[in-house]
Amino acid sequence: MFESAEIGHSIDKHTYDAEVPALREALLEAQFELKQQARLSVIVLINGIEGAGKGETVKLLNEWMDPRMIEVRTFDQQTDEELARPPAWRYWRALPPKGRMGVFFGNWYSQMIQGRVHGQFKDAVLDQAINGAERLEQMLCDEGTVIIKFWFHLSKKQMKARLKTLRDDPLHSWRISPLDWQQSQTYDRFVRFGERVLRRTSRDYAPWHVIEGVDPNYRALAVGRILLESLQAALANAKNTRQANVAPLGRSIDHMSLLGALDLTRRLDKQDYQEQLVAEQARLAGLLRHKRMREHALVAVFEGNDAAGKGGAIRRVAAALDPRQYRIVPIAAPTEEERAQPYLWRFWRHVPARGKFTVFDRSWYGRVLVERVEGFCSPADWMRAYGEINDFEEQLSNAGVVVVKFWLAIDQQTQLERFEEREQIPFKRYKITEEDWRNRDKWDVYAEAVGDMVDRTSTEIAPWTLVEANDKRWARVKVLRTLNEALEAAFAKHKK
Amino acid sequence: MFESAEIGHSIDKHTYDAEVPALREALLEAQFELKQQARLSVIVLINGIEGAGKGETVKLLNEWMDPRMIEVRTFDQQTDEELARPPAWRYWRALPPKGRMGVFFGNWYSQMIQGRVHGQFKDAVLDQAINGAERLEQMLCDEGTVIIKFWFHLSKKQMKARLKTLRDDPLHSWRISPLDWQQSQTYDRFVRFGERVLRRTSRDYAPWHVIEGVDPNYRALAVGRILLESLQAALANAKNTRQANVAPLGRSIDHMSLLGALDLTRRLDKQDYQEQLVAEQARLAGLLRHKRMREHALVAVFEGNDAAGKGGAIRRVAAALDPRQYRIVPIAAPTEEERAQPYLWRFWRHVPARGKFTVFDRSWYGRVLVERVEGFCSPADWMRAYGEINDFEEQLSNAGVVVVKFWLAIDQQTQLERFEEREQIPFKRYKITEEDWRNRDKWDVYAEAVGDMVDRTSTEIAPWTLVEANDKRWARVKVLRTLNEALEAAFAKHKK
Repeated sequence: MFESAEIGHSIDKHTYDAEVPALREALLEAQFELKQQARLSVIVLINGIEGAGKGETVKLLNEWMDPRMIEVRTFDQQTDEELARPPAWRYWRALPPKGRMGVFFGNWYSQMIQGRVHGQFKDAVLDQAINGAERLEQMLCDEGTVIIKFWFHLSKKQMKARLKTLRDDPLHSWRISPLDWQQSQTYDRFVRFGERVLRRTSRDYAPWHVIEGVDPNYRALAVGRILLESLQAALANAKNTRQANVAPLGRSIDHMSLLGALDLTRRLDKQDYQEQLVAEQARLAGLLRHKRMREHALVAVFEGNDAAGKGGAIRRVAAALDPRQYRIVPIAAPTEEERAQPYLWRFWRHVPARGKFTVFDRSWYGRVLVERVEGFCSPADWMRAYGEINDFEEQLSNAGVVVVKFWLAIDQQTQLERFEEREQIPFKRYKITEEDWRNRDKWDVYAEAVGDMVDRTSTEIAPWTLVEANDKRWARVKVLRTLNEALEAAFAKHKK
Repeated sequence: MFESAEIGHSIDKHTYDAEVPALREALLEAQFELKQQARLSVIVLINGIEGAGKGETVKLLNEWMDPRMIEVRTFDQQTDEELARPPAWRYWRALPPKGRMGVFFGNWYSQMIQGRVHGQFKDAVLDQAINGAERLEQMLCDEGTVIIKFWFHLSKKQMKARLKTLRDDPLHSWRISPLDWQQSQTYDRFVRFGERVLRRTSRDYAPWHVIEGVDPNYRALAVGRILLESLQAALANAKNTRQANVAPLGRSIDHMSLLGALDLTRRLDKQDYQEQLVAEQARLAGLLRHKRMREHALVAVFEGNDAAGKGGAIRRVAAALDPRQYRIVPIAAPTEEERAQPYLWRFWRHVPARGKFTVFDRSWYGRVLVERVEGFCSPADWMRAYGEINDFEEQLSNAGVVVVKFWLAIDQQTQLERFEEREQIPFKRYKITEEDWRNRDKWDVYAEAVGDMVDRTSTEIAPWTLVEANDKRWARVKVLRTLNEALEAAFAKHKK
């Protein structure tokens, strides 16, 4: 894999000087087009051998291009805010918005290769990390991110020579960190695991480019040209609205469904309700103060039919707690900054730190509900969202976040009664809009979307709880009890 | 000041139960109006004696109101990301956007009172903190934030009794922290310094409300009513476009000005330029690697006439450095999320952490330049901006941030030549727009705004550097040299 990057590529000064002006101009034009279109973002991943010119090349690119549209990030030591969240959070918060370019040093590949080289884990865990990276990149590309991956290479001999030269040059000796010297010891392992990673993550949508790092002219021109071609191809492609092939999901052929099977007559009388509510609220308050909670976070997702009582259920959850312990995130239309990012970005930004509890009043499931039904995104977009959402929730779960998802279900008659009732009560008036009445006409289409959603995203790590909500009391107690059981189950796992 | 909150206020259950439903409904209506108008944000500051019901009252408010529109924040231990920036950064990042309400526990008042009580500083420093809080609140109010400040009070005797009751109640004993017990020792000092703070910070635009905390019914109703009245008054007021009285700034009466006094014929020949440029770039690179830099951050602000060469100067600064060391923040029109916040919010979010360097390509000075000239904000808004900006930069400076501000000046003839030249060069075409030509017609109005800006915001802690930029070489070297001198001066101060 690295053979052709150890053969001594070089470009003479004359050729270099002749080529750079046109390349630079074309890069600037591409950058401008990127900004104008504002449909794509670009991530350049910088990896490879120490001393192979990674920093110098990026510095040069910043000189050739307009550095005001480039954000160079390096992910070294995690901050305590980052340590308290899933590992990918730090990358999500650094994603460049559409129209801009991010250059990532010390990215997900560096972390996984270093971890394997230093024996923090074995191949199986490395392969998990590789799969995670693949899924992340696939998703980013589907969301309009161009990913360009560079591996700067040196042979072992070249590397040692290069470090020696740097050390002996007083102007550059500061550039060599103890880590670099260490790498000269671990070169063989670094290259072996690097190859494993490159082999598995070089995909049509985000291929690796291996660059021999000995000759500055060669590496600069090679990187510049690849960057230019990748940009130009992506920009040209972005103009054509892509129509992906979408396989049909298949329909129920016997009219049976999970939702249809719910027993909506379930109810609690007032006395039972008050007793159970108070008991479950106290239990939740206790669990959130439990010392095990410091190793976990809690995410509760509330979805449901309009007027199913999401707000009321959330209020009963909140009432159990000190307001300093939770945050409620109401999900409405995305803001301008959110629209310039991949779909899940606006949820990642609200992922709770360890010890905290976040309630999402509507959620990322909007993608496969309202956006699907109303045609706000293409079928390909919502179809792939099932997998993306499962990945997202798996990452939360792996980081100790307990994810509890509620679908509050009512029947059409109950909804009608609640709509009419709301129109009568002054301070509930605002809860009912024209749109709610329109959505009601699409009852069956929504029901189908909900069925698909539950089938495809109810997983062991983040199961859906369907809540019979014709009776608000029943629904509220079931919500609280489900939260409590989920937390207790998570805490109990520690004991094993 | 606290006397009338030690006389045993109480409300009987009957009165309470009769009043709450209407109060709750009115609060919900006000909250809805707040969201609909989306012109105001609300900050509720919670302070006072431990055990006086702060937490319980906020919990109750969250039950009465719609908790989805309220964000409760508590500012205890600073994260390392917060510690690396000016103290106010943590409050700025938590500000509620327009239409929403934030409840701040452990806010700026808690910090200053605790600091004084525990002898971390004396009255002079407390008074500085008080002045800082006043300026912050004045600014927030001018920007459309309603600030409601509650002091929950207990007499010393009441406090001790309350802590004892809590301790003896197994359901509530967890609520008392060691800090609370400590406060019973420091009660007298706490009340003394609390009074000093309240006395000086109770202003017409953000008065304090002292609430006796013994009786839960009393404190809940009292807080609820004050909140309601404050909200209703602010909402009614927001509908009338306020026309503040603005004092005239005064004009130059002899046509002399700082800008006019610049010698724009200053220039460097190519040889001198190249030598000096390389020398200053190396000096900057060295300074940013200096160990003293870990205690500082660097902010460079670039403003100037159109086509004065801001971009080129920034590129020469960037070229000196590893791209991982700096960030360039181009300032364009604010995004939707930025428009929902006080003016300076969008700059606060980019304040560098210690050790870092941020370049602002245009800046907060837009308020007193383009926004003033084009009428994007009212005269009152840009007039008060001078003071707000000075406060902002003082906070940066106090936190060790070196602030360097450049105005790149060219004459009208030079600008014309550059505009025409840009229209000829393909990859510079995008730099010139219709708007640039329009701005050119307003040369004199802009010159006046620049003059006022420099007069009012060139301070010892953050002076303006006027850069003669008819000759690009001269300008670039002067920019680099100024940055270097500013850093060296900051580092030298440590030695004293």
